[in-house]
Amino acid sequence: MGYEALISRIRFDESGLVPAIVQDFETGEVLMLAYMNSQALLMTLESGKAHFWSRSRNRIWMKGERSGHIQEVKEIRVDCDEDAILLKVHQVGAACHKGYRSCFYRKLGDKDEPILDHDKVFEPEEVYGE
Amino acid sequence: MGYEALISRIRFDESGLVPAIVQDFETGEVLMLAYMNSQALLMTLESGKAHFWSRSRNRIWMKGERSGHIQEVKEIRVDCDEDAILLKVHQVGAACHKGYRSCFYRKLGDKDEPILDHDKVFEPEEVYGE
Repeated sequence: MGYEALISRIRFDESGLVPAIVQDFETGEVLMLAYMNSQALLMTLESGKAHFWSRSRNRIWMKGERSGHIQEVKEIRVDCDEDAILLKVHQVGAACHKGYRSCFYRKLGDKDEPILDHDKVFEPEEVYGE
Repeated sequence: MGYEALISRIRFDESGLVPAIVQDFETGEVLMLAYMNSQALLMTLESGKAHFWSRSRNRIWMKGERSGHIQEVKEIRVDCDEDAILLKVHQVGAACHKGYRSCFYRKLGDKDEPILDHDKVFEPEEVYGE
């Protein structure tokens, strides 16, 4: 079947994007926040692998296309206003290009800088090269 | 101490906003996605209660100010790019104004419409009135 009717319900913003929260299906850890356009959402629904719109590179990108750290989508949810998406995924490797399992590896506290309290699971230069 | 230096690190967008994921501190359930401007982030840090910028009402709003369903902030995290926030909260009552614990009470599947698979925990008209 087609996903056109389903996708047409989503309220993409004036740039044609919707924020997508990515959560680890097994642990519940929030891994990252990224953005989808309608094509990225369609490709995610059809392939079962998370695709996003890269605002910096201006193109659709499959998470893990370089690193192999793909996200196998277990569930896609939508919020009450239909302007935010929640992906529950099986994360291969790690979500963050900085080498952490989650992009949210720092907390805000009583310091002037965010406080690192997670450990790296890979070294970015070994995965992404130069 | 002041939070100015910390807040100055956050990359608010061209509208002065940053998306904030709200997650249940106890269960890990993702409850909602909302937006903060720098003042809402400051008020959240200072008060320990989640404040957001309402894009529809064009004002700062304390979550639960009408419903009593406040969010007591246990932890605030920031992502690698410093353009997304994660709040871990103790949610009083329910996060969604539609009466569900989480705003993500529907999933996308093989139907043309999102599929409801959560139960309401309150009736909106009883909490918000007319």
